[in-house]
Amino acid sequence: MATPVHTAMRGLEDVVIGDSAISLVAGETGGLTYRGYDIRELALGTPYESVVHLLLTGSPPSEHPPRDLVRTLAARRTLPPEAQRVIDALDPLTPPMDALRTLVSALGNGQHPYPPTVEQGYELIGRAPSLLAFFVRRSRRQPLVPPDPALGHVANYLWMLSGVTPTPAQVRALEGYFILLADHGMNASTFALRVVLSTNSDLFAGATAALAALKGPIHGGAPARVSEMLDEIGSADRAAAWISDRLGRKELLYGFGHRAYKVEDPRAILLHTIARGVADPNRLALAEAVEREALAALRRARPSARLYTNVEYYSAVVLESVGLPREMFTPTFALARTVGWVAHALEQATGNRLIRPDVRYTGPTGLTWPRYGAGPP
Amino acid sequence: MATPVHTAMRGLEDVVIGDSAISLVAGETGGLTYRGYDIRELALGTPYESVVHLLLTGSPPSEHPPRDLVRTLAARRTLPPEAQRVIDALDPLTPPMDALRTLVSALGNGQHPYPPTVEQGYELIGRAPSLLAFFVRRSRRQPLVPPDPALGHVANYLWMLSGVTPTPAQVRALEGYFILLADHGMNASTFALRVVLSTNSDLFAGATAALAALKGPIHGGAPARVSEMLDEIGSADRAAAWISDRLGRKELLYGFGHRAYKVEDPRAILLHTIARGVADPNRLALAEAVEREALAALRRARPSARLYTNVEYYSAVVLESVGLPREMFTPTFALARTVGWVAHALEQATGNRLIRPDVRYTGPTGLTWPRYGAGPP
Repeated sequence: MATPVHTAMRGLEDVVIGDSAISLVAGETGGLTYRGYDIRELALGTPYESVVHLLLTGSPPSEHPPRDLVRTLAARRTLPPEAQRVIDALDPLTPPMDALRTLVSALGNGQHPYPPTVEQGYELIGRAPSLLAFFVRRSRRQPLVPPDPALGHVANYLWMLSGVTPTPAQVRALEGYFILLADHGMNASTFALRVVLSTNSDLFAGATAALAALKGPIHGGAPARVSEMLDEIGSADRAAAWISDRLGRKELLYGFGHRAYKVEDPRAILLHTIARGVADPNRLALAEAVEREALAALRRARPSARLYTNVEYYSAVVLESVGLPREMFTPTFALARTVGWVAHALEQATGNRLIRPDVRYTGPTGLTWPRYGAGPP
Repeated sequence: MATPVHTAMRGLEDVVIGDSAISLVAGETGGLTYRGYDIRELALGTPYESVVHLLLTGSPPSEHPPRDLVRTLAARRTLPPEAQRVIDALDPLTPPMDALRTLVSALGNGQHPYPPTVEQGYELIGRAPSLLAFFVRRSRRQPLVPPDPALGHVANYLWMLSGVTPTPAQVRALEGYFILLADHGMNASTFALRVVLSTNSDLFAGATAALAALKGPIHGGAPARVSEMLDEIGSADRAAAWISDRLGRKELLYGFGHRAYKVEDPRAILLHTIARGVADPNRLALAEAVEREALAALRRARPSARLYTNVEYYSAVVLESVGLPREMFTPTFALARTVGWVAHALEQATGNRLIRPDVRYTGPTGLTWPRYGAGPP
């Protein structure tokens, strides 16, 4: 071929696959912006639907909160009968992330063709919490909780899942989480979606692939490990000994380090702030003590590694504090990330090119197929 | 960062993402091998299950056909009740590719954890034709056809879909098609699966993402266009005028050209041979006349382009000839490709590294969020 073959690192680390104008991850300085706006301006108190508007359309809404968008998303919460039928048909023991993937896939019924539209995006974002909440309550044999049109997108999710009206502090905290997890440049789930969209397959197919990737523990599938670690440590005075023992056995501490950030993840700082406003004081004190001891121990063990608290750590504390059970941590991350996925689908469809890399063949060549004797007829 | 940033072409064309020992696509010379065996040795008359064994395990089976594997796949054809429930729940108007994606996703119910195994692969390969055939017959309001344990994998698929015992010539032809479409190095659906597996998500999640990508018309989603083109042309004597008119309007001809091959796609040659053994002579003559005229016209229009007949062209003729309706062309391609997907999932899980490329941010920076006036409460 005329073009040279690039031998990239496995994992495509630092390989630039194209341009994007959605979010900017500044790994060296610890910055994250959405459409040019610093998440420090957005995460604490901006109405959630305003950030959805920003990410999908590229600009802030003209009113605050954007009433049309609030209504549009709320109108999608009531599911069509075939979606309800698929929820009822699924094995109730299916883990929620797998169920959400199947249910989002079932929304892709041929009625939302390529190219993706903002309207299709609202359908995905608006329906996904209902799919998840209805499935989870059914699998627990709890009565279904119908959506409440008076509640915002995030508050309604907590309501449909728990059947209890969330407190304003819980709503603010989970809205902050949803804003902070809405997009993060290129990552495995967003990339899976872009590969799918690059074949001119549709948004719901792309979101299904993204959910398939987000489930993996290396990507989105393990935030509950932080809560389990905190439970195991139990109290602040046990933190130093537990961590030292753990590192001595060459085992991992959860919630520290991120491929993209060489300084503290800005989302971790903001989620810590959010946790202060909503967490049980004892749990928060435990989390802070474990964080201090863990960072000190990790830095002693690897002074050059620049390890910091990552987004997973205080995510776990925030999600616990708004009453979410641990098996809902990754699916809740997925609901937040649907917004970024829609933005990336819309961007991929603008000047698309099929994403199709190459591999280097390292197997045998020139083998001869065995001549078998006459077998049974 | 210490490592240099590689600015790759959009589409990752010619970017090598790693090593693979499954299939070798020799784009310059027109060769394709599976595990070192030339497809010209495999496509005409090798029992299908022997090639499945080869691709999944890396070696030919010790007996011919491999009776254990034939039995293993046959045993997966009867679906568990929850899979049947999801089939019944889906909107019957869902296009078959979307339905197959949702149904494969529903098989991923938490019972097949990462890492992928050959056994899980047999479950995927063995169940997928039943999922598709049951869904399609139900959507047509036809009685379901139970699997026939006396038939091989491919013959049973035709039986369950049509309720008619296929002829030996049809079975041989479709087995050849299944063998030729089983794997093709790196491609968008296989890559989507590998991105998903790289997060340590499971095989069924990966296959779901692959199905999402294969649906796109740029990848697997448009082989029926060839049949439609042949219908429109209607007879060999109209081919030259139709093609000249079409090219004059700058419209595409379907079934010619492939990013990987600079010579004739070896699968196209073998599918042509297979078509000769099963197609209606008039249809075959039309296809051959259109191919001759199309290649001549394309070469006159772009003498340097090295355009050849691709896999799509005679695939359409073969799939027509075994009695498959056009909306089943892409789903049937998907069934064939499940074998390659399993092989790639197994390979990705060996020495895995998260696949996570980067993007170049081209949007605005440093914007200030508007100060809204006091809104409604």
